[in-house]
Amino acid sequence: MDSFTATASRMPELRRAIREHPERYRVLTGERPTGVLHLGHYFGTIVERVKLQELGVETFIVLADYQVITDRDTAGNVRQNVYEAIRDYLAAGLDPERTTIFTHSSVPAENQLLLPFLSLVTEAELHRNPTVKAEQEASGRALSGLLLTYPVHQAADILFCKGNLVPVGKDNLPHIEITRTIARRFNERYGHVFPEPEALLTETPELPGLDGRKMSKSYGNSIRLGMTEDETAKAIRKAQTDSERRITFDPERRPGVSGLLSTAAVCTGRTPEEIAEEIGGQGAGALKRYTTEAVNEFLRGHRQRRAEITDADAAAVLHRGNARANEIANATLDEVREAMGMVY
Amino acid sequence: MDSFTATASRMPELRRAIREHPERYRVLTGERPTGVLHLGHYFGTIVERVKLQELGVETFIVLADYQVITDRDTAGNVRQNVYEAIRDYLAAGLDPERTTIFTHSSVPAENQLLLPFLSLVTEAELHRNPTVKAEQEASGRALSGLLLTYPVHQAADILFCKGNLVPVGKDNLPHIEITRTIARRFNERYGHVFPEPEALLTETPELPGLDGRKMSKSYGNSIRLGMTEDETAKAIRKAQTDSERRITFDPERRPGVSGLLSTAAVCTGRTPEEIAEEIGGQGAGALKRYTTEAVNEFLRGHRQRRAEITDADAAAVLHRGNARANEIANATLDEVREAMGMVY
Repeated sequence: MDSFTATASRMPELRRAIREHPERYRVLTGERPTGVLHLGHYFGTIVERVKLQELGVETFIVLADYQVITDRDTAGNVRQNVYEAIRDYLAAGLDPERTTIFTHSSVPAENQLLLPFLSLVTEAELHRNPTVKAEQEASGRALSGLLLTYPVHQAADILFCKGNLVPVGKDNLPHIEITRTIARRFNERYGHVFPEPEALLTETPELPGLDGRKMSKSYGNSIRLGMTEDETAKAIRKAQTDSERRITFDPERRPGVSGLLSTAAVCTGRTPEEIAEEIGGQGAGALKRYTTEAVNEFLRGHRQRRAEITDADAAAVLHRGNARANEIANATLDEVREAMGMVY
Repeated sequence: MDSFTATASRMPELRRAIREHPERYRVLTGERPTGVLHLGHYFGTIVERVKLQELGVETFIVLADYQVITDRDTAGNVRQNVYEAIRDYLAAGLDPERTTIFTHSSVPAENQLLLPFLSLVTEAELHRNPTVKAEQEASGRALSGLLLTYPVHQAADILFCKGNLVPVGKDNLPHIEITRTIARRFNERYGHVFPEPEALLTETPELPGLDGRKMSKSYGNSIRLGMTEDETAKAIRKAQTDSERRITFDPERRPGVSGLLSTAAVCTGRTPEEIAEEIGGQGAGALKRYTTEAVNEFLRGHRQRRAEITDADAAAVLHRGNARANEIANATLDEVREAMGMVY
């Protein structure tokens, strides 16, 4: 049984345990603020976070600003991306009273954990991480020290708040593994400080882009949560379909049509097949009108709420989150210093 | 002209500039608190630090406690080693009012600089650092993430306080080079924040151990500054010499005798040849008595002063230094955040 199968088989029991004892779990999740959030983020991660919050699980969301520069030269418009993300979090129902939202670069004591943690892994182990390999190849650049050590920053992100539950897709299981290794080795050498976090495999299948490929800002195939209704209509109008008039759901052969169907489906709670059946022989134009209406209808409340959140509101949420993250990071770092004998 | 020759040729002018404008320089220097300090440290680095302080150059001394674990599993008795080092610094004339003594693990904002700095170097560049290679081979262990990134911690040590002058031996020039590279790349990408520090090549030739080899705790060939006079006598008595009765200074052929002569020479301000000539045909026993007396006489005041410094005194000096280092590190990190657009 491989690591994915083993993890997946534990999920029903883990989900039951979370429902029964939400107070035993602390979640760490987050993203790189490299751009603004789109529908894929909404259904892929944000919905899950809101669900965990509503179950009563304490959640930490890191906006990993330093990880923006693992594969590019400068951080770009990172502040605006951070504020936009916070707008989407709040509009989607994340509550800053219950969920701590913070920026990586604002928590020095968390970052300091990188040093003891780096002593617990070998260069060879860092190289074995498939995400490091994949991201380096995608970047087409020489491997930077920051990208190479990226799994160790993630371990610090998770362990500084003693997160014991990390929602991940299949691809990110190796990050959890290296975090568990670091926690275990630290505890063995210096005494127990850290939990060994568990992966919570996300349930939602990945939402494809409007062209059926992986949804990505760089492919221009995503619907940003902050788009206006007109911008949404325009993006969907430009989506490439095919010349078959009858609409069917066939992701392999008809990626464009099927991408639109999947998008309409998640926004309406219907299945793609049902929608295809309904549109029948009316062609791609009708499908696009249906999808536009579905998306705009679904996001209407979200967009109204996000429009009311000012930069100052977002900054206030972040300051509160950063203050809490710093408090926790300082307490954890004190334990680490005590365990390592570095108290003077 | 290689890098060493080029640097060496600049030294007379640099030393003149320091004498004329000590206020233009800020020195960063330090050591790993892996053990207690010995005569080699005294003549190799401490004397130079006192000299710089007396010239009016502001000096920062890092006790690099995290670097203890680059090549071993735990930090050992790091606190006691830190206190002992501070005893020796103060006894040798370093003044905590003018010289900032701090521990690496106590300055989170300094450690945070590791993240942006790691983005500025490639893994290949880290591998080219000869110290990393040498230390890894010496350790006989797999290369840890901490040892691999060691040149970048050193860059953070130097640049957090905008140190622009770093006393080094020839072997450490590559560290200065990578620090200059990191400062230059940061400034190019984000705007000017950091100086490009210069190497100050130490003038004193390296003091060999009692057996003529490199002085090292692990060879048992060093005289610790904190030894008693009896312990000193015993250590010197055990030193291996040779059966030639006539004492001559010949480091190649007679490492043991010459190691003793070098030790006696630095402690008396005489030359090894002069001392050899004076002892003449009286043999190794006389040389050992002479060396013992020279060392004990030289260190008498130092040892009296260090014995009067309690752990609490050392801790107070460190708290003061750590507070100042944190203040400076926080200010520098604020500039870094501003330059990178990570102000929220």
